[in-house]
Amino acid sequence: MADRYYHPAALVESADVGLGTRVWAFAHVMRGARVGTCCNIGDHAFLETGAIVGNNVTLKNNVCIWAGITLEDDVFVGPNATFTNDRYPRSPRMPQVAARYETPERWLSPTVVERGVSIGANATVVPGIRIGRYSMIAAGSVVTANVPPFSLMVGTPARAVGCVCRCGQKLLGDYRTIACDVCGETPRMRCLESELEVSIL
Amino acid sequence: MADRYYHPAALVESADVGLGTRVWAFAHVMRGARVGTCCNIGDHAFLETGAIVGNNVTLKNNVCIWAGITLEDDVFVGPNATFTNDRYPRSPRMPQVAARYETPERWLSPTVVERGVSIGANATVVPGIRIGRYSMIAAGSVVTANVPPFSLMVGTPARAVGCVCRCGQKLLGDYRTIACDVCGETPRMRCLESELEVSIL
Amino acid sequence: MADRYYHPAALVESADVGLGTRVWAFAHVMRGARVGTCCNIGDHAFLETGAIVGNNVTLKNNVCIWAGITLEDDVFVGPNATFTNDRYPRSPRMPQVAARYETPERWLSPTVVERGVSIGANATVVPGIRIGRYSMIAAGSVVTANVPPFSLMVGTPARAVGCVCRCGQKLLGDYRTIACDVCGETPRMRCLESELEVSIL
Repeated sequence: MADRYYHPAALVESADVGLGTRVWAFAHVMRGARVGTCCNIGDHAFLETGAIVGNNVTLKNNVCIWAGITLEDDVFVGPNATFTNDRYPRSPRMPQVAARYETPERWLSPTVVERGVSIGANATVVPGIRIGRYSMIAAGSVVTANVPPFSLMVGTPARAVGCVCRCGQKLLGDYRTIACDVCGETPRMRCLESELEVSIL
Repeated sequence: MADRYYHPAALVESADVGLGTRVWAFAHVMRGARVGTCCNIGDHAFLETGAIVGNNVTLKNNVCIWAGITLEDDVFVGPNATFTNDRYPRSPRMPQVAARYETPERWLSPTVVERGVSIGANATVVPGIRIGRYSMIAAGSVVTANVPPFSLMVGTPARAVGCVCRCGQKLLGDYRTIACDVCGETPRMRCLESELEVSIL
Repeated sequence: MADRYYHPAALVESADVGLGTRVWAFAHVMRGARVGTCCNIGDHAFLETGAIVGNNVTLKNNVCIWAGITLEDDVFVGPNATFTNDRYPRSPRMPQVAARYETPERWLSPTVVERGVSIGANATVVPGIRIGRYSMIAAGSVVTANVPPFSLMVGTPARAVGCVCRCGQKLLGDYRTIACDVCGETPRMRCLESELEVSIL
């Protein structure tokens, strides 16, 4: 496996970055952020202490992964797509809410993005939800609730408008029964096998 | 009060930053931007000459505060939330519009974000409006008109779907009469008092 | 024409940047990106190898121009507005899709933004479309289909709600017949003339 590559203008403070991962200009990986192997972290991306990122993940430019966000293997996050980890955000130094921000348990809502999901460009993901494996979130959507696996989600708030294959193409029916007319795979069957090989983050 | 902290990769050209304010990596505070005390300015944020930011304000990553934008004390701005200051933007060096961009009076529409407001992640705020105190703008919303105080605003365009307390929780009725079942405060009464102590930017 | 200006914290690797163009702090112009004369490239913007940008273009902060995106002369792109170039994005190092990402022909959908268009702040543009000259995309909109010239586009997905003049103001009727009550121009007539002078990118 190739060595890590850190662009000279990147700022990588974490000691927990996997082999083969590249971090591009003006990106910032804080101490304590965990990043797997063979990831690609675009310019101006940001990984906070406590962020957890699997293997083969692509983060395009300006993506921020906060404490409480877990991205499993093979996830794609488009440019300017935005995660959150606080359902009722206030400025923590506002005196009336200072107590709430004393410990993360009081305010942090974790989010899990399962294996192979694609989050479209400039999409927004509210906190405290789980996005099922291989789902595709359309560009510009706002995800406000849990997403079942293999779902194509569109709009504000995002609604399921169909199923997608692991290869990213829209399926003509339910992923549990139909084969993809582009790659030929029946996602449900293939996934039962692949679940045996999911890496544990 | 603690001293200012500027990350070594931050670019702070303003001489008007208050004590206790922290500016993080790759953020840029231009000469002539005014920033109060105890603010937290995230990575890759940008404050233009003419921006006005009160005390205890939190700007998350990638937030840009332009000339003509005023954020009062205790404001929270989520990551990638976007302000604007021109209702009819064109590229200023396009010959047909060059005259309009000769002086700010011809094109700049100011925006005021009142005390304690939260602007959700990836929200968009059109220019020339006022967002009333302690309102909460949901993540991914597009705010296109003035917002009354204590409003919970959701959607594209953003609509008022209820009231919020100063603590950030949704109220079960009108903020002028009801007490918050989380913090116990009746926001309207508490605010009449607090108006006596609003700092003047 | 003025010389180029590159902020000391900018990263300009392209040798194909026109005279009079300014590139601001923490922006990154990759080798092989083509940029015309008199452009203004804001802080934290990013131009990928293969991006094509005409003359007099304004890119506000955090805008990314990918391979396959062409911006003609006089285009304005608001802050955090987001382009895309892949209709079915997956993380390219996910083994099941690796073949698709071997050559750009298999996945890249080009986008053309014609002369004088304004893309509003935080708007999203899906790949493979053409935005007609002098159109205005409202802030926060999601553009999902080709846009006729002089269109005012609003919403998610963006719908045409009227016509705009070259000067940016809303017209009271069709751009082919009506004069702008702000600048007096009849856009259609003026444009037939101006088409003679369009620069070829």
